[in-house]
Amino acid sequence: MPDPTLDVLAERIRRRVRDIPDFPQPGIVFKDLTPVLSDAELFSAVVRQLADDFSSHDVDLVVGIEARGFIFAAPVALHLGTGFAPVRKPGKLPYRTRRIEYALEYGVDALEAHVDAVQPGQRILLIDDVLATGGTALAAARLLEQLGGRVVAAAFVLELAFLGGRQRLSAFPVHSLVKYTAG
Amino acid sequence: MPDPTLDVLAERIRRRVRDIPDFPQPGIVFKDLTPVLSDAELFSAVVRQLADDFSSHDVDLVVGIEARGFIFAAPVALHLGTGFAPVRKPGKLPYRTRRIEYALEYGVDALEAHVDAVQPGQRILLIDDVLATGGTALAAARLLEQLGGRVVAAAFVLELAFLGGRQRLSAFPVHSLVKYTAG
Repeated sequence: MPDPTLDVLAERIRRRVRDIPDFPQPGIVFKDLTPVLSDAELFSAVVRQLADDFSSHDVDLVVGIEARGFIFAAPVALHLGTGFAPVRKPGKLPYRTRRIEYALEYGVDALEAHVDAVQPGQRILLIDDVLATGGTALAAARLLEQLGGRVVAAAFVLELAFLGGRQRLSAFPVHSLVKYTAG
Repeated sequence: MPDPTLDVLAERIRRRVRDIPDFPQPGIVFKDLTPVLSDAELFSAVVRQLADDFSSHDVDLVVGIEARGFIFAAPVALHLGTGFAPVRKPGKLPYRTRRIEYALEYGVDALEAHVDAVQPGQRILLIDDVLATGGTALAAARLLEQLGGRVVAAAFVLELAFLGGRQRLSAFPVHSLVKYTAG
């Protein structure tokens, strides 16, 4: 049975999310979450819900994907009482890194993590703001597993369900607070 | 009289900070805070201290500077019960933005904020991970004031005091948890 509290939170988020046509490129409708962040009570409720979903999962480490993912992942780590680690675009992390490349529609992109970001066997919750095609999150998860971690779940504020990201991330549970079923 | 609790926290941070020579360019010694973030208890203590310093300042909004600033600013906003807004590099924010350019040693850089990031008269706490020359923080503060906000303080985890950033930010109080007095 759907949790009515979750439905209320999802509706509050939907009302605040701002559609930006043709960003970052023509044909894409970007979901702008900054109005959620500027609403103190709503931002707090979002972070609490993301954390509460995983309070029984024995998470050891929360990883955020640059840069918007940091905004949710860092407070969730603090709520869960875990450390935080960043996954970043190439060249941003100062220490020795491991890199993973992944295919985009046109070309390739890459992510990096510090080689000591993960302790062997750590149970990782991966967080980003929006789940679209899942390509970035899948690459981040593989990178973290190459470093010896175990991704036990991924969480997103918004899910663009029509892009099929959840299917690509089938190796672990995927949570999202708001699902958009059409572009 | 120095607060011994603050001294203990500063020493714990110092022990975790990792010096990275020649990053991001030759001659710079970068202070890597990721080992602080991965220490759950220390990361939590840092955020609590940053927030506690301002619990009596009637802060309305916490602004973080991309990207590492987000990691501290977002949780501090939640601790203080305020909203959060990002200041970002050009082209990253999806909605209408206001931009400020500022001089670097060689060339110029720029920052952007959404035109509706700040409500008129809001009292803003500006947060970044490291205070170096203060150029970026000063530009961010000016941008936020152009948008109608009032920067009531700036807070940093680390301060490279020998670079004189505090002097450039003399228009508002500057807090930092750890001061390095020599490169």
